[in-house]
Amino acid sequence: MSSYSIAIHGGAGTISRRRLTPDRQAAYTQALTQAILQGEAILKQGGTALDAVTAAVVSLEDCPLFNAGRGSVFTADGKNEMDASIMTGHDLNAGAVAFVKNVRNPIRLARAVMEQSEHVFLCGDGAEKFAQYCGLSFETDAYFFTQERYDQLLKAQREQRILLDHSEESADSVDKKHGTVGAVARDQYGNLAAATSTGGMTNKQFGRIGDSSIIGCGTYANNLSCAVSCTGYGEFFIRGVVAYDIACLMYYKNLSLDEACRIAIQEKQTQMGSDGGVVAVDAAGNVCLCYNSAGMYRAAIGQNRPLFVGIFEDNIALL
Amino acid sequence: MSSYSIAIHGGAGTISRRRLTPDRQAAYTQALTQAILQGEAILKQGGTALDAVTAAVVSLEDCPLFNAGRGSVFTADGKNEMDASIMTGHDLNAGAVAFVKNVRNPIRLARAVMEQSEHVFLCGDGAEKFAQYCGLSFETDAYFFTQERYDQLLKAQREQRILLDHSEESADSVDKKHGTVGAVARDQYGNLAAATSTGGMTNKQFGRIGDSSIIGCGTYANNLSCAVSCTGYGEFFIRGVVAYDIACLMYYKNLSLDEACRIAIQEKQTQMGSDGGVVAVDAAGNVCLCYNSAGMYRAAIGQNRPLFVGIFEDNIALL
Repeated sequence: MSSYSIAIHGGAGTISRRRLTPDRQAAYTQALTQAILQGEAILKQGGTALDAVTAAVVSLEDCPLFNAGRGSVFTADGKNEMDASIMTGHDLNAGAVAFVKNVRNPIRLARAVMEQSEHVFLCGDGAEKFAQYCGLSFETDAYFFTQERYDQLLKAQREQRILLDHSEESADSVDKKHGTVGAVARDQYGNLAAATSTGGMTNKQFGRIGDSSIIGCGTYANNLSCAVSCTGYGEFFIRGVVAYDIACLMYYKNLSLDEACRIAIQEKQTQMGSDGGVVAVDAAGNVCLCYNSAGMYRAAIGQNRPLFVGIFEDNIALL
Repeated sequence: MSSYSIAIHGGAGTISRRRLTPDRQAAYTQALTQAILQGEAILKQGGTALDAVTAAVVSLEDCPLFNAGRGSVFTADGKNEMDASIMTGHDLNAGAVAFVKNVRNPIRLARAVMEQSEHVFLCGDGAEKFAQYCGLSFETDAYFFTQERYDQLLKAQREQRILLDHSEESADSVDKKHGTVGAVARDQYGNLAAATSTGGMTNKQFGRIGDSSIIGCGTYANNLSCAVSCTGYGEFFIRGVVAYDIACLMYYKNLSLDEACRIAIQEKQTQMGSDGGVVAVDAAGNVCLCYNSAGMYRAAIGQNRPLFVGIFEDNIALL
């Protein structure tokens, strides 16, 4: 038995310090702490990386502070459409869903696709039908409604443009909320897993899908290299095939996890004019929390690693 | 000005020799020839790789012999739902659509997403709305109806299971048809492009999306390495992130195009129990047509390369 580790994120972007009051900061810190400790408890008891990342992401999906599950932003039609994906590193198995409504925990649906279907990627009404078939929990529109998210939609519609959820502009609402959520873990058996979930972009149109549901782009896991969950400008993360790029930089070029993440995010994404970040864990249990934006909601913990929770680069909360 | 090349595929899989009559073989050979010559004409005149792969895939989409566009298979609901993606290697720009109905040429829609939207990946009704916005051609259900495809659906439903379009079983219908279509090209300016389009799986349910619409999995292009279009068992091609894997094997490991394709398909996909193939072209204009199935509908031509059209491994048509 070797040591375990887990890392999570709750989105990256231009997080306005001015608007993130001490109370809000404390609320985010508490929510991140709760999510990562739920994942860690599973690893500590000898549970699997898959169960750990599922538990951590479910916790973040259930928290209205984050743009995933309950706290999902609104589309142009005033709906909450969610994407999620999950992958296990020992068998390269994967599941993903896009464009699903009213499913309480899209990450559980992605996992059901992986474990209970012959498919990897299900979409829309069909994915919801599969969720019913699997007996997953549904919630009413009211469950997903938060006034702040709705105000963000109205604001975006007034401005006649699509706001990236993690952009500075969306931080204008009094109680702003940011980003995708995700988790990566290495369990005591040396197996890796990654999971990502999102409510997409405020005021999104035309059935836009970002990187969060795309294996290789938003999520990837392989015991030979690493597990990665991304958050950021989805279009650029797709074009960069970011999650698999980090795995390839490690496996094909023998780079360390830190070097691989730095090249994929701080070099390549920066050159493309994109911002965002990743959480990643490698086969040895090393953890990397890497971003090129002003901040990333993030946390990490391991058997030999104290709990870390952070938001800004220089304003981290060490508990 | 350097030399151009282009390669296309019309699907891979277990193609039954017994059922592929000489007449049918001639029809496929003619359709592949027509498609690749349309792409080549553009390259010869100094056109772009992007225009060449678009023209070749449009030609294959318009031909009812192939499972894309007009010849798309039927879903469990008796609909024709199509996926497509396209990418350019000089700027890593990309466009993709999934789950679209009645759009005459899904590859044109993927290209419109790339060129006329801020997004990379659109899906379902929203993608169709975007197609209308861009003034793309729509067709009625009747246009997409072919009796043979419908018979395949009825047969699959009788057998209460989902048939991979390229499986031996689907070849039971008198006039069987196979696969995804795709094209890759290098133009005289050294730019690469890749395009892929499909009608998915016969009797597919739950909004299943395969690799054809996924950048990095079914389609990838980068002037630093290669352009790739995949066809095969979509779930395994997603899990293998096949198109980008080939690019990484070249760029990070300095392998040749042939070696990279062989590892990705003949080693990795074979080990996973999957079958399929790729067409690929590298920055130097080398072409690779690689598969681990019994056959792949394929063709290649270049400035310094005679026309090649093939179906089986040992039963190739050299024109």
